[in-house]
Amino acid sequence: EQTQYESLDYDVCENKLFQDEQLSRLRDRFSLRTHIIRWIIFILIGIITAVIACTIDIVIEELSELKYNFLKSSVDDNVTVNKSGGDLALPYLWWLLLSAVPVAIGAGMVTYIEPITAGSGIPQVKSYLNGVKIPRIVRVKTLAVKSIGVITSVVGGLAGGKEGPMIHAGAVVAAGISQGKSTTFVKDFHIFKAFRDDHEKRDFVLGGAAAGVSAAFGAPIGGMLFSLEEAASFWNQNLIWRTLIASIISSFTLNIVLSAYHGVSGLTFTGLFNLGKFDHPLTFEYFELPLFMLLGVMGGLMGAAWNFLNTQINKFRSRFVPWRAGKVCEAVLVAILGVTLACAMIYYINDCRPLGNDPTIHPVQLFCEDNEYNAVAALWFQTPEATVRALFHDPPGSHKILTLAVFTIVYYLLSCSTFGLNVSLGVFIPTALVGAAWGRLVAMLLFYMFPEAQFLHPGKYALIGAAANLGGVLRMTISLSVILMETTGVETSFFFPLIIALISAKWVGDYFNDGIYDTVIEVNHVPMLPWEPLPQYKGLTAQAILSKPVVCIKLRDRAHYIYEVLHKCNHNGFPVVDDVEGDRRSEGRVCGIILRSQLIVILLKSLYVENQRFWQQETTIQTFRDVYPRYPSIQSVKPLDRKFNYTVDLSMFMNPSPVRVNTYDSVPRIFNIFRALGLRHLLVINNENRIEGIITRRDFIYK
Amino acid sequence: EQTQYESLDYDVCENKLFQDEQLSRLRDRFSLRTHIIRWIIFILIGIITAVIACTIDIVIEELSELKYNFLKSSVDDNVTVNKSGGDLALPYLWWLLLSAVPVAIGAGMVTYIEPITAGSGIPQVKSYLNGVKIPRIVRVKTLAVKSIGVITSVVGGLAGGKEGPMIHAGAVVAAGISQGKSTTFVKDFHIFKAFRDDHEKRDFVLGGAAAGVSAAFGAPIGGMLFSLEEAASFWNQNLIWRTLIASIISSFTLNIVLSAYHGVSGLTFTGLFNLGKFDHPLTFEYFELPLFMLLGVMGGLMGAAWNFLNTQINKFRSRFVPWRAGKVCEAVLVAILGVTLACAMIYYINDCRPLGNDPTIHPVQLFCEDNEYNAVAALWFQTPEATVRALFHDPPGSHKILTLAVFTIVYYLLSCSTFGLNVSLGVFIPTALVGAAWGRLVAMLLFYMFPEAQFLHPGKYALIGAAANLGGVLRMTISLSVILMETTGVETSFFFPLIIALISAKWVGDYFNDGIYDTVIEVNHVPMLPWEPLPQYKGLTAQAILSKPVVCIKLRDRAHYIYEVLHKCNHNGFPVVDDVEGDRRSEGRVCGIILRSQLIVILLKSLYVENQRFWQQETTIQTFRDVYPRYPSIQSVKPLDRKFNYTVDLSMFMNPSPVRVNTYDSVPRIFNIFRALGLRHLLVINNENRIEGIITRRDFIYK
Ligand SMILES: Nc1ncnc2c1ncn2[C@@H]1O[C@H](COP(=O)(O)OP(=O)(O)OP(=O)(O)O)[C@@H](O)[C@H]1O
Ligand SMILES: Nc1ncnc2c1ncn2[C@@H]1O[C@H](COP(=O)(O)OP(=O)(O)OP(=O)(O)O)[C@@H](O)[C@H]1O
Ligand SMILES: [Mg+2]
Ligand SMILES: [Mg+2]
Repeated sequence: EQTQYESLDYDVCENKLFQDEQLSRLRDRFSLRTHIIRWIIFILIGIITAVIACTIDIVIEELSELKYNFLKSSVDDNVTVNKSGGDLALPYLWWLLLSAVPVAIGAGMVTYIEPITAGSGIPQVKSYLNGVKIPRIVRVKTLAVKSIGVITSVVGGLAGGKEGPMIHAGAVVAAGISQGKSTTFVKDFHIFKAFRDDHEKRDFVLGGAAAGVSAAFGAPIGGMLFSLEEAASFWNQNLIWRTLIASIISSFTLNIVLSAYHGVSGLTFTGLFNLGKFDHPLTFEYFELPLFMLLGVMGGLMGAAWNFLNTQINKFRSRFVPWRAGKVCEAVLVAILGVTLACAMIYYINDCRPLGNDPTIHPVQLFCEDNEYNAVAALWFQTPEATVRALFHDPPGSHKILTLAVFTIVYYLLSCSTFGLNVSLGVFIPTALVGAAWGRLVAMLLFYMFPEAQFLHPGKYALIGAAANLGGVLRMTISLSVILMETTGVETSFFFPLIIALISAKWVGDYFNDGIYDTVIEVNHVPMLPWEPLPQYKGLTAQAILSKPVVCIKLRDRAHYIYEVLHKCNHNGFPVVDDVEGDRRSEGRVCGIILRSQLIVILLKSLYVENQRFWQQETTIQTFRDVYPRYPSIQSVKPLDRKFNYTVDLSMFMNPSPVRVNTYDSVPRIFNIFRALGLRHLLVINNENRIEGIITRRDFIYK
Repeated sequence: EQTQYESLDYDVCENKLFQDEQLSRLRDRFSLRTHIIRWIIFILIGIITAVIACTIDIVIEELSELKYNFLKSSVDDNVTVNKSGGDLALPYLWWLLLSAVPVAIGAGMVTYIEPITAGSGIPQVKSYLNGVKIPRIVRVKTLAVKSIGVITSVVGGLAGGKEGPMIHAGAVVAAGISQGKSTTFVKDFHIFKAFRDDHEKRDFVLGGAAAGVSAAFGAPIGGMLFSLEEAASFWNQNLIWRTLIASIISSFTLNIVLSAYHGVSGLTFTGLFNLGKFDHPLTFEYFELPLFMLLGVMGGLMGAAWNFLNTQINKFRSRFVPWRAGKVCEAVLVAILGVTLACAMIYYINDCRPLGNDPTIHPVQLFCEDNEYNAVAALWFQTPEATVRALFHDPPGSHKILTLAVFTIVYYLLSCSTFGLNVSLGVFIPTALVGAAWGRLVAMLLFYMFPEAQFLHPGKYALIGAAANLGGVLRMTISLSVILMETTGVETSFFFPLIIALISAKWVGDYFNDGIYDTVIEVNHVPMLPWEPLPQYKGLTAQAILSKPVVCIKLRDRAHYIYEVLHKCNHNGFPVVDDVEGDRRSEGRVCGIILRSQLIVILLKSLYVENQRFWQQETTIQTFRDVYPRYPSIQSVKPLDRKFNYTVDLSMFMNPSPVRVNTYDSVPRIFNIFRALGLRHLLVINNENRIEGIITRRDFIYK
């Protein structure tokens, strides 16, 4: 189970072929051109990601508008106004239909066409950036399914958000553009060939994820920090710079498109703040700080409980609903449950507000007076994102305490059962929504008790509550705080309360369990490298975690030996050794490392010493890049027959400078090296440079 | 000359003693305690840095207020109003006096007490964070001189800012607190002993620099990014997290203190935006983007010219004004020149504005009508920072074109001759001021030509001009853009124009020369590691840059050999070798590396094999830490006499896991390793693990 994921090669293989290419580039000023092209690609990534995000955004908005407008008029038509015995059955059925059908479509597409698109996408992108290859994660097909999936699910009214999928979309766009080819369309545009390796691709995906965050939240700096927090193993100024540009371009494009769409001129479309801009600077008093901290603690507790509950539900699910049709049904059931709960709330809670400084765009009259609207329906008759916005910005007194309390509980449970369904939905917005609801609730309760406490601005507490709940569920502190700041336009001076809430939530939550993304990653057995070596490895040496005996290959080895090794074991890297007595390869002196993919290409193209004159001229590093990223398997190599005893000379193909450590080096030390350099294989040698063992990502996690 | 700087050891020496300590920590849960203490220190750094910054701020403000109030009344008293023949001689003399005296004090202190405090401090902090030990840079004495120096110079009216020194102050605070001892006060508080090594200290200084930026600009995220852009070699989430906390705490403290000082309640003191908050969101039209880019190009050109001119002036200076008294005189002369030019401007340019929506706090009437004030005097009768604020926020029509044009030229030249004087002054504010002036000028000129172009908001163009000029002079793009955003409170949507201006300025400027900080660093021959390997090293292998023969020490070597080696050569690291035939050490097998400082401690404390029973018990890693950071020199070791032939066994002292590379590894590759791991020495070995050469920071730069 643990072996279904392979790693990316962030370490560049500087073999002879690579050096030759470098030299030729030196001559023809190729490197300047590559440099410029790289910039252009980053800019393109920003633009296209934003366009996709906008499209998703606008389609969701339009369809939701249609849906809720229709429902509103249906309610109004069917309820005999002012008589509390109106007939809600028909609108309820309509609502059920308009929720179940889109959800069924979305869940069906995800389940039957591309299951990898289920969920938020952030855990997958995070794993990818950490260096784990997740199959099919950056394909165009994935992008298409994910986009349609997220639109249908949000329109269907599930308790989820579009942000995670948008970030995933950014990653796909980045991988797609930078490679200049698409597996889905079986099309190779023969451009950007120089960027076809894991190292370059991962850098682009970093930019794509940043552009995605930027487009999802209108938060360019938050986007860059998100990428950094989740990904970059070492800080490379140029890379960060390009990432920032991608995310700025993305937010600018978003601005242009949305301004045009909303018919606003002057490029100050505040829809970029997609959680709504706080117009007046939020102020706070010193004595509120402990309160913020308490909210943080509460967020941590609720978040940890949410994560626990969600994990249990998902365990239950994967045990009892293994079949595909069942998964679709489940999603539809949750949608129906949501609608039913909402209807019940609207029906039983009587919360009428005067129309006027009316914060909602679909005021439903229902059983209210003529100049009033139903505040409960207002919470439900819009997308979750719009509800967050409402909770942040509604004037004080827009809700009843009971309404919000019930809403919080209902939405908490709904979002908990939604995340993990086979639909493309993120967890950011529902989490923020729950947090905003109880944050506002706390302010309202306190204000009820201390009516003279003017500082209890409910919108402010909704924001703090959202931050606390997000901190408790996601545990991403740095980027989250910046994203929240950028997406609500609060001032730098309010950064401190936000951070207080976030950090207390994170610390309290961390005491109980992991963040939700990390939980998903763990449940899927993805070998993610943590930030620091696991505590149990303190005080150990390489000896304790290395694998041996190591399967090695001689610098000049027989074709059939390689062929057999590739068949027999599924390792991806083999140390190349020299100075071997007979066949005792695993005692040889290390002189390099070679990857399985390279060996397969060598066998496929018959790059043997004996027929060197046939291939020596035209074999370049491009020969190897051309098959990237889907290398053929060893099964596709025909039996060697006549070439059985031919010799392979690895000296020009292998990576001659693998990173080596000593048997007695401490694990924390080699972990840092492994992580900082983004390695895939680490060779352990003794004082005579003879191989002692090999360490991969897996050994740091599971041993 | 190039050898006056040594490097920091960012790589932890994991020798036997260290391992022992680790094991004992594992037992007594020491590591949790260390962890918490580390957090507390970062918080303290934030608080104290902010308090120092506030103090500097407030003292400057109060003194300037006094000074300019006095000058104003002196002008008003002496000028017979409405007669253009008023007597300006006395006010001029007063002004001269009130400028020359503080500047003389500041320059005198810097020159005679602590010359390292001259200039901005950012280049030094940058070098330190890059891994170069700059002597005396983080001492308390340096901090004191720098603080008083910056106050006197700004009050004296020199064309400089307090921001650079504040950042430097943050670094000193960080180093001071984290080490729990001070060389200046010859006082060891015996606390925080576990943090006494270069690695920990550098991490704290990173936080200190961030806190400094945060306090100087009220820009917490900018502070964190500044530290990252300038420093961190690899991205460690925990470190970044602590850095962010330090800078947030710092900006929060600043907020509290300044709110209290200004008597504002509610913690929304906008003085945090120390370049003034733009109240209305800045808007822009698409067709302005090329204009912004043009401004950027202009900024690049002007910045490059400024850097060139400044370097020439400084070369001239160091050639012709070598004596200390001369340097003080020079500073005074520049101050006098400034005052004279300002007076001349005020005298000859007749720019009267109606009082009323009066943007200046010291309106000088001078030769104007009774209800008018002199707009030229308004530019000069305040600190440069206040002038930047004025240029950003003054309503359209506050200045004449001629005034601003002359002002730009005068200030450009003044700031150019100021930076490099022996005073503690940064370059940020004057650069921003020049940029704001010509930015505003451009808008005014364009508006003069196209009076119907309403988009030509002069404040907006002043901001873009400031960004462009800063980009052209400093070339720090990422953090600069965020700092500008945070310190003026502009919205995310205006990020794009800022970046366009900054990036075009940087690219144009980079075509001509380096940023001013890098120029200073280069002029001082500091061996800074660049971000990428220098282009001329592309295609080379380690062979090309390594030093050999390498001075090595045997694993068990004679005391007198070590003694002599330390006397004979001044290297700081020596490979430890084994398996040596006779005395041919430089052909031995590498088994570790030992630092000069460790060897000296060994000799000083007589840690020989022969008397092992006397010291073995009480020698721990603390023995070595106690002498940190000012290790005794070899001269302080008494001649060995009787112990001449004693043996030193290095196996428990040396670092047993030095990073090793192969002779044929490419230079870009080993450069990346060197930088990512923050190394000091890199050993080059052959396939038998025998030493082939050694590479240090210097070899990547000067070979
Ligand atoms: N050439 C080898 N010889 C012996 N053991 C190996 C070799 N390569 C890897 N291993 C070990 O096999 C186990 C599983 O290897 P793993 O699948 O992680 O390696 P990989 O497939 O080469 O790399 P990755 O999966 O990270 O892409 C690990 O414990 C690893 O140490
Ligand atoms: N042990 C050694 N034997 C021979 N050459 C050395 C040795 N150590 C350093 N060198 C070389 O001497 C030159 C100057 O060394 P340098 O002063 O940079 O080393 P260091 O003082 O040990 O380290 P640093 O100055 O970076 O703290 C460099 O070219 C370096 O390669
Ligand atoms: Mg594997
Ligand atoms: Mg040296």
